[in-house]
Amino acid sequence: MLPLLIDDAARPEHEVGDGLSTVNQDVRLDNRILDLRTSTNQAIFKLEAGVVHVYRRSLERRGFVEIHTPKIIPAASEGGANVFEVSYFKGSAYLAQSPQFYKQMAIAADFDRVFTIGSVFRAEDSNTHRHLCEFIGLDFEMAFNYHYHEVLDVIGELFVELFKGLQQEYADEIKTIDRQFPCEPFRFLEPSLRINFSEGVQLLRDNGVEMGDEEDLSTANEKLLGKIIRQKYDTDFYILDKFPLAVRPFYTMPDPDNPKYSNSYDLFMRGEEIMSGAQRVHDPEFLIERIKHLGIGNESYSYKKSLIFSISIPFTCKLDPNKMKSYIDSFRYGAPPHAGGGIGLERVTMLFLGLNNIRKTSLFPRDPKRVSP
Amino acid sequence: MLPLLIDDAARPEHEVGDGLSTVNQDVRLDNRILDLRTSTNQAIFKLEAGVVHVYRRSLERRGFVEIHTPKIIPAASEGGANVFEVSYFKGSAYLAQSPQFYKQMAIAADFDRVFTIGSVFRAEDSNTHRHLCEFIGLDFEMAFNYHYHEVLDVIGELFVELFKGLQQEYADEIKTIDRQFPCEPFRFLEPSLRINFSEGVQLLRDNGVEMGDEEDLSTANEKLLGKIIRQKYDTDFYILDKFPLAVRPFYTMPDPDNPKYSNSYDLFMRGEEIMSGAQRVHDPEFLIERIKHLGIGNESYSYKKSLIFSISIPFTCKLDPNKMKSYIDSFRYGAPPHAGGGIGLERVTMLFLGLNNIRKTSLFPRDPKRVSP
Repeated sequence: MLPLLIDDAARPEHEVGDGLSTVNQDVRLDNRILDLRTSTNQAIFKLEAGVVHVYRRSLERRGFVEIHTPKIIPAASEGGANVFEVSYFKGSAYLAQSPQFYKQMAIAADFDRVFTIGSVFRAEDSNTHRHLCEFIGLDFEMAFNYHYHEVLDVIGELFVELFKGLQQEYADEIKTIDRQFPCEPFRFLEPSLRINFSEGVQLLRDNGVEMGDEEDLSTANEKLLGKIIRQKYDTDFYILDKFPLAVRPFYTMPDPDNPKYSNSYDLFMRGEEIMSGAQRVHDPEFLIERIKHLGIGNESYSYKKSLIFSISIPFTCKLDPNKMKSYIDSFRYGAPPHAGGGIGLERVTMLFLGLNNIRKTSLFPRDPKRVSP
Repeated sequence: MLPLLIDDAARPEHEVGDGLSTVNQDVRLDNRILDLRTSTNQAIFKLEAGVVHVYRRSLERRGFVEIHTPKIIPAASEGGANVFEVSYFKGSAYLAQSPQFYKQMAIAADFDRVFTIGSVFRAEDSNTHRHLCEFIGLDFEMAFNYHYHEVLDVIGELFVELFKGLQQEYADEIKTIDRQFPCEPFRFLEPSLRINFSEGVQLLRDNGVEMGDEEDLSTANEKLLGKIIRQKYDTDFYILDKFPLAVRPFYTMPDPDNPKYSNSYDLFMRGEEIMSGAQRVHDPEFLIERIKHLGIGNESYSYKKSLIFSISIPFTCKLDPNKMKSYIDSFRYGAPPHAGGGIGLERVTMLFLGLNNIRKTSLFPRDPKRVSP
C-alpha cells in the first residue's frame, strides 16, 4: 500500500470531509517523492524556478555580475548566535548566515554590481510557518553615485519585473496551484509603493496601535500594516524606508539628516517581511566607531531584525572589532558607497502564491526537527 | 603602504625579473580585495559568471527545471569519508558532497529534467592545484527514453554551446586574461568527440603505458591521454564512455552487453577530468543487490573516482543498505531510467582559460589550509 494517495495529497482543503481526506504536512514530507508528484507541487517548483529565472534576468540586464561566496566561514565573523558549527580539519568553522560580508567585499574589490544565489544557514530553533534552517538567498549589492535611493529604485523595478514576469510567463502554473490552494492574485503598483517608517507608524497609530518612534515593528504589527496599506493603496507589495537606527545592525548607515533614523529599508509581501536591506557603512573608521558604540559597554548588542534580511529574528551579537578585521579591512583601500539586500526564495514563492507554510516551497525542507529525507 | 601593488599583481609571469616582481598566491589571497582589482581578475570572474550563464541558458532551453537541494544532510547518506560534520541542534549532520541523491529523487518525483547550481563540500586533505574544499557544482540529471546515450548527446551539445558561447560572448575577457596568463585558445569538435574507455586504454598502450583492462586512469595517464587525443583529433575536450564497472560507485548501471563495463562516462578538458557521470541504477532491488555485492563481505568498498563527479578522489565507503533507505525507497514507486552528471565551476573556468591553479577561479577559496578571508 502506498503511504499516501496522490488524490488525497492533491485535494483542495475545502473539499475535504464526507470521507474524503487530505495528507498532513509531516506525512507529505516523510514521503516527499510521492507528494511531489501532484500537479500542484510540480507547478509550485516550476514557479519557484521562475522566481530565480526572472530575478536573475532582471539583474543581468542591469549589469550585475553573478558571484559565488563561501558558505564555510571562519569563526571570527558575525557573532556566535544562531550559527551552525562545522568541524574543519583540525579546527572549526561556521556556516554563513548570509553572503553579505562577501558581496560587500566584492564591491570593495571594484565589482560595482554583484548578485549571488545560494544556500543560507540559520541555526534558529524557530518552528513557525515561515522559518527554515536552510534556504536559498537571492542577494545583491551595488555601488551608487549620489544617494542610496538609486538602489531602492532598482529594487522597486526588480520586484515589478518579478511579479509581472511570474504572472505573464507562469500563468498556467499559478492557475494549477490556485485550484488546490485558492488565493487572491498578487497585487502590486508600478512604480512600487515606498513609504517612510515613520509614516507606517502613523498609519498604525491611526488604527489604535501604541508604539514608540524608535521601536521596531512586531510581527503582528507588520501584518496589520500590510492590511492597512492593502486597503489604502491596493498593493500587496511595498517598501518601508528609513528604519530607526536603534533597531538595525552596526553596519547600517545612519541617516545624515536625522541620527535617530537610518538609510535602511524592509520589503513586504502580503504583510510579511521578505527583505531587509540598507546602505552600509563603507568607511572603516566609522565602522569601528559604530561597533564600539554598540558593542563595548553594552556587553552584547541585541536587535530584533536579522543581521541580514529575509528573516526577522532576535539576535544577540557580541561585537568586537578584532573579530571583524578582514571585513573592516576590506574598506581600507577605498570603497564606493553601496547598498543592497537579499530575499529568501522560499518565502517569496510562498507569499506570492499566498501559501500558508514555507515547507510547501522547499523541495526537501530543513527545520529544527527535520533533516531528512 | 599597500600590502601588494596592483602593477605587480597584474604583471605577466614572463615579464617578471630585472627588478620587476609578481605577487605570490598566498599574499594575493590574504589581500584578496586588492588582488581582485586587477583587470585580469575582473575578467576571470566575469567569464566565470558567463560559464554559469551560458550553461544554465542551454539547460533551460532544453526544458530542464532549476531545483535547490539541501546542503545539510542526515548522517545516513553516502558513507563517512571526506565529509564535514555539522552540529545540528542536539544532533549532528553532514555537508553534502554532492546534490546527486537529491536530483535523482527529483527525477523519481517526476521532474523529468532538473539542474541545480550550488555549493559542494569535500573534507579532503588534498593540497593540489585543482582541489577545493568548497566549490560550486553545476549538476543536472535527466530521464531518458531508450538509451543513456540520449543523455550523453545532450551533454556533448551543452559543452559545445558552452565553449562557443564563451568564445563569442566573452572574447574581450579572454583577451584580457590572455595578456597576463598566455594560453592557447581552447579547441573542441562539433559534435563532441566521444570514445570508449577501452579505446582510450589502447591509445595509452600504443604509447608505452602498461595497464589492465579494468584499471582506472591515473592522473598522469589522464594527462597523457589528453595529449595523445589532442594530437590525433585536435580537441581539448572529449568524453570517455563505458568505464570498467569495478572502478565506479555502486549506483552505476552495469553495461547490459558486457558486465565488466558500465554505462558511465568522464569528461575531460585539457587532459583533466571535469565531470564523472553515469546512468544510475533505478531499480531498488537491484540497487540493494549492488550495495550488498560491493559492501558486505568486503567490509568496505574502495574506488578511486569520487562518489560523484568532477573530482577524482580515493574514497572508502562502508556500504550498508539500511543507511541509504530514503535514497533506495525513492525508487520504490517507479522511477524512469535516468543519467546525469555535474561539473565543478572553478575547474571548468580554470581549464578553459588554461590557468595553473584553481584558487585563481574561486573568489574566496577554501582549502585545507585556508578558511579566510
